Amino acid sequence: MLAFANDYAEGCHPKILERLIQTNMEALPGYGSDKYCLSAKEKIKQACADPSAEVYFLTGGTQANQIVIASLLASYEGVVACSSGHIAIHEAGAIEETGHKVLSIPAKNGKLVAADLANYLKDFFADSSHEHMVQPGMVYLSQSTEYGTLYSKQELRDLYQICQAYHLPLFVDGARLGYALAAKENDVSLPELANLCDVFYFGGTKFGCLCGEAVVFTHGAPSHFVTFIKQHGALLAKGRLLGVQFATLFSDDLYLKIGENAIAQALRLRAALKEKGYRFAIDSPTNQTFVVVDNKKKEELAKKVWFDLWENLDDEHTVIRFCTSWATSQAAVDDLIAIL
Amino acid sequence: MLAFANDYAEGCHPKILERLIQTNMEALPGYGSDKYCLSAKEKIKQACADPSAEVYFLTGGTQANQIVIASLLASYEGVVACSSGHIAIHEAGAIEETGHKVLSIPAKNGKLVAADLANYLKDFFADSSHEHMVQPGMVYLSQSTEYGTLYSKQELRDLYQICQAYHLPLFVDGARLGYALAAKENDVSLPELANLCDVFYFGGTKFGCLCGEAVVFTHGAPSHFVTFIKQHGALLAKGRLLGVQFATLFSDDLYLKIGENAIAQALRLRAALKEKGYRFAIDSPTNQTFVVVDNKKKEELAKKVWFDLWENLDDEHTVIRFCTSWATSQAAVDDLIAIL
Amino acid sequence: MLAFANDYAEGCHPKILERLIQTNMEALPGYGSDKYCLSAKEKIKQACADPSAEVYFLTGGTQANQIVIASLLASYEGVVACSSGHIAIHEAGAIEETGHKVLSIPAKNGKLVAADLANYLKDFFADSSHEHMVQPGMVYLSQSTEYGTLYSKQELRDLYQICQAYHLPLFVDGARLGYALAAKENDVSLPELANLCDVFYFGGTKFGCLCGEAVVFTHGAPSHFVTFIKQHGALLAKGRLLGVQFATLFSDDLYLKIGENAIAQALRLRAALKEKGYRFAIDSPTNQTFVVVDNKKKEELAKKVWFDLWENLDDEHTVIRFCTSWATSQAAVDDLIAIL
Amino acid sequence: MLAFANDYAEGCHPKILERLIQTNMEALPGYGSDKYCLSAKEKIKQACADPSAEVYFLTGGTQANQIVIASLLASYEGVVACSSGHIAIHEAGAIEETGHKVLSIPAKNGKLVAADLANYLKDFFADSSHEHMVQPGMVYLSQSTEYGTLYSKQELRDLYQICQAYHLPLFVDGARLGYALAAKENDVSLPELANLCDVFYFGGTKFGCLCGEAVVFTHGAPSHFVTFIKQHGALLAKGRLLGVQFATLFSDDLYLKIGENAIAQALRLRAALKEKGYRFAIDSPTNQTFVVVDNKKKEELAKKVWFDLWENLDDEHTVIRFCTSWATSQAAVDDLIAIL
Repeated sequence: MLAFANDYAEGCHPKILERLIQTNMEALPGYGSDKYCLSAKEKIKQACADPSAEVYFLTGGTQANQIVIASLLASYEGVVACSSGHIAIHEAGAIEETGHKVLSIPAKNGKLVAADLANYLKDFFADSSHEHMVQPGMVYLSQSTEYGTLYSKQELRDLYQICQAYHLPLFVDGARLGYALAAKENDVSLPELANLCDVFYFGGTKFGCLCGEAVVFTHGAPSHFVTFIKQHGALLAKGRLLGVQFATLFSDDLYLKIGENAIAQALRLRAALKEKGYRFAIDSPTNQTFVVVDNKKKEELAKKVWFDLWENLDDEHTVIRFCTSWATSQAAVDDLIAIL
Repeated sequence: MLAFANDYAEGCHPKILERLIQTNMEALPGYGSDKYCLSAKEKIKQACADPSAEVYFLTGGTQANQIVIASLLASYEGVVACSSGHIAIHEAGAIEETGHKVLSIPAKNGKLVAADLANYLKDFFADSSHEHMVQPGMVYLSQSTEYGTLYSKQELRDLYQICQAYHLPLFVDGARLGYALAAKENDVSLPELANLCDVFYFGGTKFGCLCGEAVVFTHGAPSHFVTFIKQHGALLAKGRLLGVQFATLFSDDLYLKIGENAIAQALRLRAALKEKGYRFAIDSPTNQTFVVVDNKKKEELAKKVWFDLWENLDDEHTVIRFCTSWATSQAAVDDLIAIL
Repeated sequence: MLAFANDYAEGCHPKILERLIQTNMEALPGYGSDKYCLSAKEKIKQACADPSAEVYFLTGGTQANQIVIASLLASYEGVVACSSGHIAIHEAGAIEETGHKVLSIPAKNGKLVAADLANYLKDFFADSSHEHMVQPGMVYLSQSTEYGTLYSKQELRDLYQICQAYHLPLFVDGARLGYALAAKENDVSLPELANLCDVFYFGGTKFGCLCGEAVVFTHGAPSHFVTFIKQHGALLAKGRLLGVQFATLFSDDLYLKIGENAIAQALRLRAALKEKGYRFAIDSPTNQTFVVVDNKKKEELAKKVWFDLWENLDDEHTVIRFCTSWATSQAAVDDLIAIL
Repeated sequence: MLAFANDYAEGCHPKILERLIQTNMEALPGYGSDKYCLSAKEKIKQACADPSAEVYFLTGGTQANQIVIASLLASYEGVVACSSGHIAIHEAGAIEETGHKVLSIPAKNGKLVAADLANYLKDFFADSSHEHMVQPGMVYLSQSTEYGTLYSKQELRDLYQICQAYHLPLFVDGARLGYALAAKENDVSLPELANLCDVFYFGGTKFGCLCGEAVVFTHGAPSHFVTFIKQHGALLAKGRLLGVQFATLFSDDLYLKIGENAIAQALRLRAALKEKGYRFAIDSPTNQTFVVVDNKKKEELAKKVWFDLWENLDDEHTVIRFCTSWATSQAAVDDLIAIL
């Protein structure tokens, strides 16, 4: 089977595995206080060009979203997100579990639109009964989005300006940030992103690590954040597992190189699809490709390719998703193209 | 530095690392549905001699305690534990975070005593205002305990009988179960333990894995437990990381062999300490050794050994803890003995 | 000022006040175990023609919604409601505070439509990743709705049938149930309502009581519901305050008579509005009247009438709400009509 | 039956009832914004001699404890209380329901002792693993206590000084504050109490009101506290019910006079008990009297008196509690004395 269903099918990048092997028998202090965690934090701060940033490691994306959001909101506050946001739909209520409402705004192209956010906030505070409603306490978005789309620098600037005007922290879910950075269309560098939000995470799980997300607070972390992580069952005893991986990912620009392959393969795949006359459901510039196929073709492909069912378009057509990743080989894409 | 501070200082057991390397580039389905997770579950059920058990993998001990307990309790119920229980003190309020009180009963030798549990429950239900109090909803204990002590088969039987009489599930925290099973004094086999509780976990983090705890429900798991795990931010995308590790740990009796070394080294250390006239603060038969040292000796040792400060005994003496593990070498113990 | 802003502006109905005075110095047991609570429960069960119903008293509507919903849902479940539902917007996140998501379905005329519910549930379970999403655990609706509209018997039957097919309890928020029962268009009697849901409450706060909602479980209450109420800070020490009020409201059909006046006055008001050429924003058959006024008229009215601003329709028009209640006098309506 | 079981058996004080009757048909704005609430707040601030205090009304004691504590703590913090504190035992886990641990310190005479608090805090922060534990976030005590005992001004000063040194808000549960103020032994006036803590509440439920507790923040209330109250289901629509009661209680020193009767009757009762040779279980100077009776006497009394069973002392003796209140008549105490 050709594996194009997602970007977390394989283990970890060979260079990361190599470092895990090399450091395996070192005796290190626990809970993220080891030298690899410290080194990884430094390297990430350098990559962000933000020496005063504070970096913490968590294990997965839903966990990172849950913990960052819960740590920033007051009890009576909710998080504003677009309706297709991961936290709004696919996290089994992890945000609500911590007592907070996801305040949804209709998405456009998988994105939160600045004008929509501005209108929502204006209307909210104009409502004389807003004291009886959930207070907006922060704003959440993903780069790249669930649909593989990207926020431009101007879009981020506009959103962040609104957030700042209302004193709402902006949180960027970067589960696929590595793929966003590598996209040709992307015009937001890592330091620029760090500068246009209050906290973001750089996802490792979908980007060459066995697990792990690096949370970066650019304007100070909440107090006692380690205790907060522990309280939420998310403090890894062997923090080294995350430290070694991120220290490697952020050495020798590995975090930039890994994405290049994913994007290059995605572009080859999309070019072939276009040539063969396939229609794209969404115009994604990153590692996810959303194609409309008729259901007969879908069945046929399913025998040889492992892909993701995205949406039933109508009775005869389905949107399917192909993901490329750091692990996708040239040969696999060739094989896929051959049977499309 | 000689590393005796804890049992989670190194990475993972070489055999586990080897399997992670071998399987690294396989493309596998996510969220615990891969073949290694399935195989690991089968092996664990066999080791427990309980074909109908249900096994789930989580990342760490506090997470396992939090999720298992929250999944079994009704909102108005609390978990009964002895006062020195890990959940009562060292989990930063992870149980309370899910809305539940830890109902503490004074510990004896680190253990919950059956007679104390019986009295607590009798008194609780005899109190005419018990409807205004937190209802006991389950019972928690650790094998081995925080103090390295062990429950005998008879003690477990007595406790479980009380639990069953009151319809309270019994949950055994097995963060160090591997070390308990290997202890000479232990008379509770894994199948016996499985048979004397409703749910337990076999800890991997402290027992040769990079991370991971295998939760075993012996009388059925809560419905939608995977959704529950996801909701608590604890569902690993690359479940394979846990599956491969546990499948290896439960192959060729590795889970039994790993503990043997830890116990053998602990016994050598304790024999030497005894010979040198040291006093033990607690009589632990497992991999943890609690010794009373005078503070001058403590300072001296601290230059060469990495140990754990357990408790200030008085102005001149301290209780320190030495841990052995699957990773402790004969040579390291020799070196430690030489400087004691 | 003429008071038409809401239906909770005055204290309590004179007959209820009279009974509070008469019983004031009686020494009674606390926490809802007094004879008036018991008597009120019996009367309500009779009015519902449901001898096996279980009745509990709470203080307010948001509290009743929060506690009933939290008591019925498993942790990983949410409550389905239409988008204009009180719990979805106007309860400051009280549902989320207990860890649950409100799963919103677009409202039509303030109501949840059976076909929409059926589609939502069908799609949810057809989604292969639904294990990663909040499970629908119950359905919520209001009779009458936020917009004063009513569910017909057939609509309720259709909704309840779907709920039963999916094993989802149906909960009816009856904060304004008294007004619904009195409406001419209403074809759902109290016994019929009790028979078409699993739990509902009969609101006293907006219907002649100082405070209080009577929660009626028609298929059994959750276990330890009193402890659950206490745990949520909602168990009144002097439960008599609720018992005496509801015992009076359900004596001599007072709960039926009170609504008659409210509806009669609302009908008079609507007839006059219609005659004067006003447009209604929503066609409400109950005690709430939603009228479109131009902004000049709005300012003019605001000097003499206390009404509720519902919505800005456009730059020149506003929807305002007039409420009648048990306390609205014929004279007040005459005065209001005179200045419209 | 003579009613001495508790201090919340009757309805409300006649003067309060009278005002409820007089104001009943006034149309007033909701949710605590009516003129009676405003007036009550002013009167309470005057009684506290603290013009900058912020006052809010809640319905009951457990609710007040839950909401005040949850509003002041960060997620990872717990509330320090003595082991016999109401929140530690008799609130069905209301504090834990909001995610917080009650950090118990053994009580002496029902009170938290300053030296014990100081030691607890010193030890906590000296523990190198305290980051893995629940952080103490505030301190709770009751005046008078569960056992009817009183903190002296010096005791409160000592406690408050420690709290301030550790930046922990001090919260005084005043469910029975009215009785404390009236006690002969009391040396803490209301303005002094307000000055020696950060927030307290003056209980109405046990002190002449139908329901209601006045929460007084002396150093600023948490932001959006009304939204917070609403989110917890505790915002009464007819806030007037609380406003009218407290405005009356704090008019013409009614709150001082009401307690006088309770204390006078308690003193008469205790003098008679002493004379008859009864032993007191606790030396309470307030409205609660704890007497040791042999079980035969207990049975005998139970036929004529409604009292509270406090504790089984041994197989032959029981501690019972007699409460007096604003409602206790001279004649009832005479009757009780006659049969003791």
